[in-house]
Amino acid sequence: MATKGFETRERIVQRALDLIHAGGFSATSMNDIVDATGVKKGNLYFHFSGKEELGLEVIREARRQYNAYLRERITGNTPLEKIESLLEAIVDFHRGRNFSGGCIFGNTALELGGRHREFSALIADVFREWTDMLSGMIDAAQAAGQVRSDIDTRVMARHIVALLEGGVMMSKLSGREDDLGSCVDSVKTMMRC
Amino acid sequence: MATKGFETRERIVQRALDLIHAGGFSATSMNDIVDATGVKKGNLYFHFSGKEELGLEVIREARRQYNAYLRERITGNTPLEKIESLLEAIVDFHRGRNFSGGCIFGNTALELGGRHREFSALIADVFREWTDMLSGMIDAAQAAGQVRSDIDTRVMARHIVALLEGGVMMSKLSGREDDLGSCVDSVKTMMRC
Repeated sequence: MATKGFETRERIVQRALDLIHAGGFSATSMNDIVDATGVKKGNLYFHFSGKEELGLEVIREARRQYNAYLRERITGNTPLEKIESLLEAIVDFHRGRNFSGGCIFGNTALELGGRHREFSALIADVFREWTDMLSGMIDAAQAAGQVRSDIDTRVMARHIVALLEGGVMMSKLSGREDDLGSCVDSVKTMMRC
Repeated sequence: MATKGFETRERIVQRALDLIHAGGFSATSMNDIVDATGVKKGNLYFHFSGKEELGLEVIREARRQYNAYLRERITGNTPLEKIESLLEAIVDFHRGRNFSGGCIFGNTALELGGRHREFSALIADVFREWTDMLSGMIDAAQAAGQVRSDIDTRVMARHIVALLEGGVMMSKLSGREDDLGSCVDSVKTMMRC
């Protein structure tokens, strides 16, 4: 049974996730989180030793939510249809946010990556997990003769993850779906046999 | 003839560029720039009204420097060789920084894009300029029969810009050349007829 403390902790993480996704890690202060949750500062620090610990939990929670969303959206009868439904789910996710917030993993990767080991390792692991998932799907599509086989599946999977991160960046800048959308369309064409 | 004031201004911009490239815009304070340049705070504010004005000048200067570097590095006898030399120059640039700082334009795009109009417009213009340059090169390579022509040149150019931004992000996270390198290799393969 969820205790009140557990619910408070969950609420802090969710509001911090919203703030960090919209504004970035450095620009979000513990005071902003106090204001957004109504939780007293002492109580906030009872749950999290500081912004770093909270930020890491935010990335873990974002990962759980986003991966659950993706798993739910993968549909289709053939391996290629499954890949295409995944790509469509990613575009839909960002369309639902008007392409404004970008990808919280990519944003944080560029903000803290290389300077902060724990964040770097955690986000690298998120990207590795997506690459693994896509590799498996591409393997199946290659076996079914639906995807070109002159490129290693892992290399192609990594290409797609990087491309989507870059495409989300372009759409965040422009506010236009077309930037991410045309990346998705062209990689579909390039993958085909 | 360069005046002392002009030289001071240039020095501020260059040091601010280094700090923002390494640490990000939000995490770099005007005090950090005072410390790094030895310029007195009053003098810093004589040259720039605030961090925003300085930050925009930093992005403009980074654009000048990076585009000059790229133009200098494009070589080759055929259109495809020119494209490949450009891709190699980009990997070399990041190798020279141990893949640690990422792309200052991409970093700032994700940090401020969507929230700050002037930064968004300026960085979108940098990406548009790269896309234009690549489009022209791909056009020539298509005309020479070196690159597939079933994808619109502008779409392919945008794909490459997004892919490189994503690949630089992955290499920044991992510190490994392989992430960006494999993106470059696979797009070369995918572009071919």
